[in-house]
Amino acid sequence: MGRKLRMGMIGGGRDAFIGGVHRIAAFIDGEIEMVCGAFSSNPEKSKLSGEELKLSADRVYGSFEEMILKEKELPADKKMDFVSIVTPNHLHFAPAKMAMEHGFHVVLDKPATFTLAEAIELKEVIDRTGALFCLTHTYTGYPMIKEAKHLIATGKIGKVRKVFVEYPQGWLTEFREGSNYKQAAWRTDPKRSGISGCMGDIGTHAFNMAEYVSGLQVQSICADLHIVVPGRLLDDDGAVLLKFEHGATGFLYATQVAAGEENNLKIRVYGELGGIEWQQEDANTLQVKWLHEPTQILRAGTPYLSANARFGTRTPPGHPEGYLEAFANLYRNFALTLQARLSGDAPRPEWLDFPGIEAGIRGMAFIENVIASSKSELKWTPFDPGS
Amino acid sequence: MGRKLRMGMIGGGRDAFIGGVHRIAAFIDGEIEMVCGAFSSNPEKSKLSGEELKLSADRVYGSFEEMILKEKELPADKKMDFVSIVTPNHLHFAPAKMAMEHGFHVVLDKPATFTLAEAIELKEVIDRTGALFCLTHTYTGYPMIKEAKHLIATGKIGKVRKVFVEYPQGWLTEFREGSNYKQAAWRTDPKRSGISGCMGDIGTHAFNMAEYVSGLQVQSICADLHIVVPGRLLDDDGAVLLKFEHGATGFLYATQVAAGEENNLKIRVYGELGGIEWQQEDANTLQVKWLHEPTQILRAGTPYLSANARFGTRTPPGHPEGYLEAFANLYRNFALTLQARLSGDAPRPEWLDFPGIEAGIRGMAFIENVIASSKSELKWTPFDPGS
Amino acid sequence: MGRKLRMGMIGGGRDAFIGGVHRIAAFIDGEIEMVCGAFSSNPEKSKLSGEELKLSADRVYGSFEEMILKEKELPADKKMDFVSIVTPNHLHFAPAKMAMEHGFHVVLDKPATFTLAEAIELKEVIDRTGALFCLTHTYTGYPMIKEAKHLIATGKIGKVRKVFVEYPQGWLTEFREGSNYKQAAWRTDPKRSGISGCMGDIGTHAFNMAEYVSGLQVQSICADLHIVVPGRLLDDDGAVLLKFEHGATGFLYATQVAAGEENNLKIRVYGELGGIEWQQEDANTLQVKWLHEPTQILRAGTPYLSANARFGTRTPPGHPEGYLEAFANLYRNFALTLQARLSGDAPRPEWLDFPGIEAGIRGMAFIENVIASSKSELKWTPFDPGS
Amino acid sequence: MGRKLRMGMIGGGRDAFIGGVHRIAAFIDGEIEMVCGAFSSNPEKSKLSGEELKLSADRVYGSFEEMILKEKELPADKKMDFVSIVTPNHLHFAPAKMAMEHGFHVVLDKPATFTLAEAIELKEVIDRTGALFCLTHTYTGYPMIKEAKHLIATGKIGKVRKVFVEYPQGWLTEFREGSNYKQAAWRTDPKRSGISGCMGDIGTHAFNMAEYVSGLQVQSICADLHIVVPGRLLDDDGAVLLKFEHGATGFLYATQVAAGEENNLKIRVYGELGGIEWQQEDANTLQVKWLHEPTQILRAGTPYLSANARFGTRTPPGHPEGYLEAFANLYRNFALTLQARLSGDAPRPEWLDFPGIEAGIRGMAFIENVIASSKSELKWTPFDPGS
Repeated sequence: MGRKLRMGMIGGGRDAFIGGVHRIAAFIDGEIEMVCGAFSSNPEKSKLSGEELKLSADRVYGSFEEMILKEKELPADKKMDFVSIVTPNHLHFAPAKMAMEHGFHVVLDKPATFTLAEAIELKEVIDRTGALFCLTHTYTGYPMIKEAKHLIATGKIGKVRKVFVEYPQGWLTEFREGSNYKQAAWRTDPKRSGISGCMGDIGTHAFNMAEYVSGLQVQSICADLHIVVPGRLLDDDGAVLLKFEHGATGFLYATQVAAGEENNLKIRVYGELGGIEWQQEDANTLQVKWLHEPTQILRAGTPYLSANARFGTRTPPGHPEGYLEAFANLYRNFALTLQARLSGDAPRPEWLDFPGIEAGIRGMAFIENVIASSKSELKWTPFDPGS
Repeated sequence: MGRKLRMGMIGGGRDAFIGGVHRIAAFIDGEIEMVCGAFSSNPEKSKLSGEELKLSADRVYGSFEEMILKEKELPADKKMDFVSIVTPNHLHFAPAKMAMEHGFHVVLDKPATFTLAEAIELKEVIDRTGALFCLTHTYTGYPMIKEAKHLIATGKIGKVRKVFVEYPQGWLTEFREGSNYKQAAWRTDPKRSGISGCMGDIGTHAFNMAEYVSGLQVQSICADLHIVVPGRLLDDDGAVLLKFEHGATGFLYATQVAAGEENNLKIRVYGELGGIEWQQEDANTLQVKWLHEPTQILRAGTPYLSANARFGTRTPPGHPEGYLEAFANLYRNFALTLQARLSGDAPRPEWLDFPGIEAGIRGMAFIENVIASSKSELKWTPFDPGS
Repeated sequence: MGRKLRMGMIGGGRDAFIGGVHRIAAFIDGEIEMVCGAFSSNPEKSKLSGEELKLSADRVYGSFEEMILKEKELPADKKMDFVSIVTPNHLHFAPAKMAMEHGFHVVLDKPATFTLAEAIELKEVIDRTGALFCLTHTYTGYPMIKEAKHLIATGKIGKVRKVFVEYPQGWLTEFREGSNYKQAAWRTDPKRSGISGCMGDIGTHAFNMAEYVSGLQVQSICADLHIVVPGRLLDDDGAVLLKFEHGATGFLYATQVAAGEENNLKIRVYGELGGIEWQQEDANTLQVKWLHEPTQILRAGTPYLSANARFGTRTPPGHPEGYLEAFANLYRNFALTLQARLSGDAPRPEWLDFPGIEAGIRGMAFIENVIASSKSELKWTPFDPGS
Repeated sequence: MGRKLRMGMIGGGRDAFIGGVHRIAAFIDGEIEMVCGAFSSNPEKSKLSGEELKLSADRVYGSFEEMILKEKELPADKKMDFVSIVTPNHLHFAPAKMAMEHGFHVVLDKPATFTLAEAIELKEVIDRTGALFCLTHTYTGYPMIKEAKHLIATGKIGKVRKVFVEYPQGWLTEFREGSNYKQAAWRTDPKRSGISGCMGDIGTHAFNMAEYVSGLQVQSICADLHIVVPGRLLDDDGAVLLKFEHGATGFLYATQVAAGEENNLKIRVYGELGGIEWQQEDANTLQVKWLHEPTQILRAGTPYLSANARFGTRTPPGHPEGYLEAFANLYRNFALTLQARLSGDAPRPEWLDFPGIEAGIRGMAFIENVIASSKSELKWTPFDPGS
């Protein structure tokens, strides 16, 4: 089964939300231990975070460059195996590239990079270095999403006709950037988030979900983005009409100003014979609707699920798993694949099911295309994949 | 309280779906009795339907023209007070106009007419004759929809920002026009349904719902309609991006090819302070979401509701009412208003809450605009109200 | 199809709740018209109610005795066919007996009578007079309950092992008898309600549901009743452990002091192969749970249901029907059976599915046994059917 | 913040279900590392489990006695701090006692022991040794359960009147003991499970939940237990009527033969002003029902919750947490309390909220009383707390 993998973290200091999530996701299955970190570009803050996280002081670094260079010099049985990068978007590309070029594997928070061009370049780095790379599109880590993909891929609901994905949140209903609220501040700041706010932050999740579950690629879009809250600098709401390959159509909408909504990601796909429906806030349930038979309620952990879906659950049916376990599924699959590589074994097919740079490039292309379409007076904008 | 009103029905013979619904809706509250009918343009079929419905044979007519002319000659204490017109769309305008011009009031199934021009002319007839007119947009008859409108109108959720309305059905997933299925046949036939299928049949309901609940009018649209099932002659699916007055935006989608869906009309409206959500298949519940407080579950029949919503319920909380009662609310309000008029009394404000020709014109304009937008290469089409 | 049946009503004047429900249930399908009534033992009140209900003044009576005697003298094509009795429990037996003995059929609100002895005597009157009799246990009128019964009767879930039925309400959480609240007043008054409050009012519904759906009779009970609200004279809460024939066991609980509950009747039955679950507040859905397969969601109005369940629905799937339609199913089946009898035709099997005096006797025996058990120090009391 | 705590595990080898759950729960928050284990009484199996779990071979022991004695000899900065005991019930007492008497703290799976007498003796050991002790009643680790307790304790729903707790599972619907199914085998074996099957396994959870949430102790019970599946040796189903202190009443039922049910623990408590309802399979939601106002939906992670409930969540609202996080809340509170003790700090009040030996004694008393009551012909059996 190999040994525990050693993780170094870049970003994710004290008040960060997503850094803590990555750590839980990495720890939960006992396959990964955190050995070092560069938690902040402020060395003092990094040090404090390292103490809180019970790291040895000599493994807490003041910058990612320092961490990568110093860890590289450590003995093979001590140095980190991979980095987990959980910084804001503008600080994804440089550490990922440097880590891989110095022999480390990479787990990277989404969206992949600051621009599409960076994502395409990152693919070249991955190809050149042979590093293992995982992009943390959490929501495709849910077991019932894997089951949905399986049902569609095996033709159970027939040829896909419609794909509806929606992602309402309410946490940016008010102008919170001005307050001392780190999450809101960087996500609405073009310098750190990129050219899109809502579409970059959660629209990319919805887009990834739509393509992952349906198995179809988007070919044309018609986007209508809004800055709803006065004073905000990036879109906080938007709808996108979609045309997929093979004639399917649908829409995506994402908003962060739906007052009272939490994190209500939902996907519905309809084919000629039936449809599937899944909602993140009730994640252990997959509805399968049939044209001529009663709807079925598929549940996580049950023996009738496909291998991929079963592998994504740790407990028997009725013991709900959630967001952290979905996130952990990405880390676990990444870790098992990496352990197999390190010990020269063949990975099991289930382990390979985690998002890579291709999903990252699609996501960055989505952001650039959706911004382009939103500025266009024409209804349809062909989806330019960028490469 | 006045006397029972006497109804004559046009259309709604044996296999018709909506005729039976209108009759139940008319009978349920004991304010209306059916005294005559022209149930089919085939006199033999009309006669058989009349027998089944236990009408006196001399009050069953072979055509609406015959019915209107003969009923007009009957004594005042015997002749019908109003007609209920439940024919396919191409047969709405002529009987409505003729009935009003001969002194009868009218209840008319939606959409109002075959074309927008007819709807505008119908308004002129109504204004000229002074007839009382009700258009049966069923879904705004639900008490919790009335409560949603009330909450928004009184500012409870703040300035409206987003309006999402969706209406998935699955009953036209297969090509059923060719079979002996009357419902599918006329609704997909341009000669009887008009220029739109899905948008005319259920898109108009969704549109009416969006404007009724939000209190806002649509000003621009971006439509993407589809004929999904090969061989079909009219749209069976479509999405429409919406711009409302006062800066609100949203979307409407309606489809009849979402395999496994029944009649899943749903509306969500978000304002600066909260949001509302209602789903027809769980009609007695209204979710009210708050930005900083727990979501509330408002329930039909409870004393904390507004007068309009309370009036729309016949039973205590927990005794579910449904589609037929919502439909009956239109008939009851129409009947109580008409009784008041006949007896010279002032109607109570609640009674006046039923859709009229203005909603009918908006609905017909929606159909024509949505077809125009779907053909346009430009993203946005200004909503032309037609008058 | 016969003619419309003529109904006379006993009780159900102005402020009564259940009288209005019976009228709607009778009117909804157009098979019944109300021609006369004795709405109150106070002739003035009866007259006012008759006016409101738009009855001819000469058919509004000051007492049920007067109504029965006078109607008997009317011509055959004018006099009422049956009475609907909607008085408090202590006034069930006398009018039912007198009506039948004077040639009228009877629809009777539940519980059947004031005492078990009366119910047994009523059966004798029915047998002797040959009158058609319907007891309005509303909840078994729901189509999905008929489907549940059908699935169990045809062995789909295997031998029944467990039957759980619960009925929480909250409307008697406070002491409301003292206020001017007619519903609370008579239902908590031993002189009008009988020896039990909660168990008589809603426990009997739950009991009827358990036996109807499972197809099994209760053989022993262990009851624990409470008067929760100080000053109340009858039980307002209680739980009953149940032993059924053929080894099944379960429980029933009913309460009227579950603050915040509406009318939350729910039944679950489990067999060797699966289980069913139904909740009145989501009445159009029946969950069928399987041991080794996904749960199925059966929905009212769908073509895959049994004949009995399909017959109990008036609209296509997704158009919710509710309490009033379930109630109307009793009236419709009673009316169709009576029309068939009057015209000498054989009734269809679906029409015969309405509760009769046997259910009434079981219900009255339930009340008497549950009171006896609640007073016993022994755990188990054999269920004495009384005859 | 102290250092990571070092855990040794007793039991929980390869096919065990609950051992893996304990490990995840211990690892998830990064406060605990596993340093040693005696995973099986078969040394070879223990060794294999240790390898799979990536433990150093010299810290994998062939028996718990060996582990306790050897670990005691290790240097202070290396030896384990506490043991986690996840063996079948008959192997709880001996290792717990021995561990504490050799200076180790203890986390123990429920029910506490094999007999009530053992649980009482264990309390004496705890008192004598001063060890920190945690009993893993998982379900009270859920944040919304903590909120429910808080609402009731602070009087929000008024004086408690009714407590209903139910726990249906279906996994023992068939006779699975004979097959090679370890979970079913030991849980239905009196030699390993004790005098009760279902009531000991899940009834104790339900009982703990009822007393924890309501804040009331059970004083009398009336139990009806069953062995539903032929050939089984212990109860697999049962219902218990409950009388609590201060006049509240209610019931508990637990079954493992409800075909198609997963792990459907549910609690409802009603007071004079409102009620709460929580269901484990929708764990992030707490319904609060009010007598005169709309029901509220409280959600995990929201700022309006009490401190205890907020502390039990790791992610923002809408990111579902589940069973493993609830379990982890026990470990985290235990760990933080232990770290505080080790470093001489005062624990925060939230940290102290984990079940101890008092809950263990109540649970064992529940088992013994419920068996006694089930054999009694009298309705009520006073609840004997055993000490």
